[in-house]
Amino acid sequence: MNRVRINELLQRPEAGGEVTIHGWVRTCRHSKGFSFLEINDGSIIHNIQCVVDADVPNYDRDVKALQTGASVRVTGRLVDSPGKGQRFEIQAKDVHVYGNAEGYPLQKKGHTMEFLRSIAHLRARSNTFGAVLRVRNVMARAIHDFFQSRGFVYLHTPIITASDCEGAGEMFRVTTLDAGDPPRAEGEIDFAQDFFGKPTSLTVSGQLSAETAALALSDVYTFGPTFRAENSNTTRHLAEFWMVEPECAFFDLDDDVALAEAFLKHIFSTVLSECPDDMDFFNKRIDKTAIETLRHIVESPFERMSYSDAIEILSKSGKSFEFPIEWGLDLQSEHERYLTEEHVKRPLVLTDYPRDIKAFYMRQNDDGKTVAAMDVLVPKIGEIIGGSQREERLDRLQERMKEMGLPEEDYWWYLDTRKFGTAPHAGFGLGFERTIQFCTGMANIRDVIPFPRTPGSAEF
Amino acid sequence: MNRVRINELLQRPEAGGEVTIHGWVRTCRHSKGFSFLEINDGSIIHNIQCVVDADVPNYDRDVKALQTGASVRVTGRLVDSPGKGQRFEIQAKDVHVYGNAEGYPLQKKGHTMEFLRSIAHLRARSNTFGAVLRVRNVMARAIHDFFQSRGFVYLHTPIITASDCEGAGEMFRVTTLDAGDPPRAEGEIDFAQDFFGKPTSLTVSGQLSAETAALALSDVYTFGPTFRAENSNTTRHLAEFWMVEPECAFFDLDDDVALAEAFLKHIFSTVLSECPDDMDFFNKRIDKTAIETLRHIVESPFERMSYSDAIEILSKSGKSFEFPIEWGLDLQSEHERYLTEEHVKRPLVLTDYPRDIKAFYMRQNDDGKTVAAMDVLVPKIGEIIGGSQREERLDRLQERMKEMGLPEEDYWWYLDTRKFGTAPHAGFGLGFERTIQFCTGMANIRDVIPFPRTPGSAEF
Repeated sequence: MNRVRINELLQRPEAGGEVTIHGWVRTCRHSKGFSFLEINDGSIIHNIQCVVDADVPNYDRDVKALQTGASVRVTGRLVDSPGKGQRFEIQAKDVHVYGNAEGYPLQKKGHTMEFLRSIAHLRARSNTFGAVLRVRNVMARAIHDFFQSRGFVYLHTPIITASDCEGAGEMFRVTTLDAGDPPRAEGEIDFAQDFFGKPTSLTVSGQLSAETAALALSDVYTFGPTFRAENSNTTRHLAEFWMVEPECAFFDLDDDVALAEAFLKHIFSTVLSECPDDMDFFNKRIDKTAIETLRHIVESPFERMSYSDAIEILSKSGKSFEFPIEWGLDLQSEHERYLTEEHVKRPLVLTDYPRDIKAFYMRQNDDGKTVAAMDVLVPKIGEIIGGSQREERLDRLQERMKEMGLPEEDYWWYLDTRKFGTAPHAGFGLGFERTIQFCTGMANIRDVIPFPRTPGSAEF
Repeated sequence: MNRVRINELLQRPEAGGEVTIHGWVRTCRHSKGFSFLEINDGSIIHNIQCVVDADVPNYDRDVKALQTGASVRVTGRLVDSPGKGQRFEIQAKDVHVYGNAEGYPLQKKGHTMEFLRSIAHLRARSNTFGAVLRVRNVMARAIHDFFQSRGFVYLHTPIITASDCEGAGEMFRVTTLDAGDPPRAEGEIDFAQDFFGKPTSLTVSGQLSAETAALALSDVYTFGPTFRAENSNTTRHLAEFWMVEPECAFFDLDDDVALAEAFLKHIFSTVLSECPDDMDFFNKRIDKTAIETLRHIVESPFERMSYSDAIEILSKSGKSFEFPIEWGLDLQSEHERYLTEEHVKRPLVLTDYPRDIKAFYMRQNDDGKTVAAMDVLVPKIGEIIGGSQREERLDRLQERMKEMGLPEEDYWWYLDTRKFGTAPHAGFGLGFERTIQFCTGMANIRDVIPFPRTPGSAEF
């Protein structure tokens, strides 16, 4: 079908020529002798106004009956618009209606986010969610471009797994066994008869697999769905979310910090330069500091500080925090936000956390107490990236696994990478949806993914 | 850490300068007074040869002890190589060993694919799997580039789903209920207590979700993991694989066919131009027609033919096929291959299949017997893409769902898109791993994904 996208039309240097657009009616106003249709096709947040004269053949039958939500094809001349707020409009000579929208639930008046979530199959036709999905797309592209331009290999790590990366995840079980009457052997469920011959789950991280590939290809990254079966009904948790995990061989913590800084700056500067209209919308309607916050991050050198120094600063801050501050305890969002927003007033990379609050695979520092971990904290949300240099020394890794009760036989392949040609390596993880929340200012993480999965909800 | 990738070194216009590389020893040969190390870092299939003189300080202790698989850092001068088959080599002045590889299972001698699968955590260090993962990466990039350059929005459709796209999939159940003692209500499993409050599965396709987004944003595509719990132990089936699914509004079957042709040509021409060394390897070692096949597809206009014409041609072919040929039966791989390899001798798009062998959502043709489906067939494998125009007429769709026993209440949101601003739209699906198989000539689909999931196997 012959069509031009509305974003292309609106970017033309001048009016003129006959054009055909396809899209959905956002509003229509019928006057004596003509109608105004505002059409949107999702390519850009702006509508194009079509002026339809009553002498269009199907005017009375079709055009006057048009409702918000209807899908149409409009052919006409692109002319300069006399109205304000729009450069061009279309003087329609032909209007074809594909489908009207009797009873359409998405009217122009403001709906609550909760209501829009209940019609998630239609909400991409609203200004807010169209903008979210376009920004999400540009961010995803920016992520790929960043790593591809640096020679990283995009790696698809398995979703179904028989291992548990963090050693402590709440995982979804994946099975084909009969739910009500699973086969049993000596009273126990006989997982030998399950699809994979053993219990399997949905992955919580691709990191361990990515490490094996980094120790072959040097630089890899994953970008795929990950899962947590946590019963967390918050504005920051999803049961299914997308994660980005680069992993690099011959890489130490300094390299990792530098990569994370360059990475975040690339994503945010791409959004600023490629999504001006959508970011303008978020800045006006959702979060008045959205653009300023991104600019600030792009322009600021990240500060770096050890966890131990951070504890000292927090202790001396004179602020009263809800959660206690003590060396050895994990930092809470309130602590992270104080450090980045009030203390250093720019993005902050905290390093060298107590080993007891971090995962088994993090590289142990010589002090015997801390590990070569790093978290990147940004204003408004706190931690946005978590990473580390990995423990590449076989004996240290085995020792730590033993301390933490992780059976070596479950990790034989992971340990193999330390037996054969082990090398210093490091990586980090970025939660994609939290990063979209950060960019757009959207308050609830359920509103930055097309169809959110949360406790009690797997609609659509 | 200061490092340069070996692919960058090998592309330099001339020798000279001091360089530091990091990588793994592929082979080492020790002569009197010096050693030759072949080092690979995964950035390219070729190794770089390092010549290490015995006067390097740690020569006796470290260099002479080096084994295949060890990880090293080598610093030295980049010089023209007197040996053949390589332009440059490094005259090492410093060799640091990160980790040796006593007992390394991946020796230079040829291993079987089965053996390499049993060490999937190490096989990316072999020539074959390094090449597979690099080509896979370039293909994934080409897929994103194709759609992004055409203004499509990359959409993340849900992995966990309460619906079944095809109405007939064998699906994995996703649950947090106790496997042995699930809660019951009136004897039945009480799925209200499961994580999502109802039974859920792993998606077999993102299409239905993608349709809702296309009917808002016009052009979208998915690229994500999909799942089949089929007990198929073949060289063409995985339980977990990646699929690409574009979906476009205001798009008919002709548009869909044209998009599929441009898409395949873009992927294959990108692989040919960006992976010359890896494709050369596949062409020599795996499939002597690999490059020629891709070139042929890139250069040939795709032929188009109706299913009915195909049946007639097959009936009159005089060939004896294993499976019967009769209007109304699905085509088998042998039929597809005959048509594309022997009859038209180029890629072939078959259209307008009998509606009874196709999914409920395909648009019904006026003949009452066929649907606006299309399959793209290519030499060697047969079907590589399957797609259709979707049924946008509410009454026809409801009628078809009733005939096929699909309850409307399970698809209320899908039907809503036909009630409110419905529009002609179309899309297709491409199995990513089968396409990689096609490009590389790899015989088994388990060997084109980092960690394959198949019946009885979810290792690593």
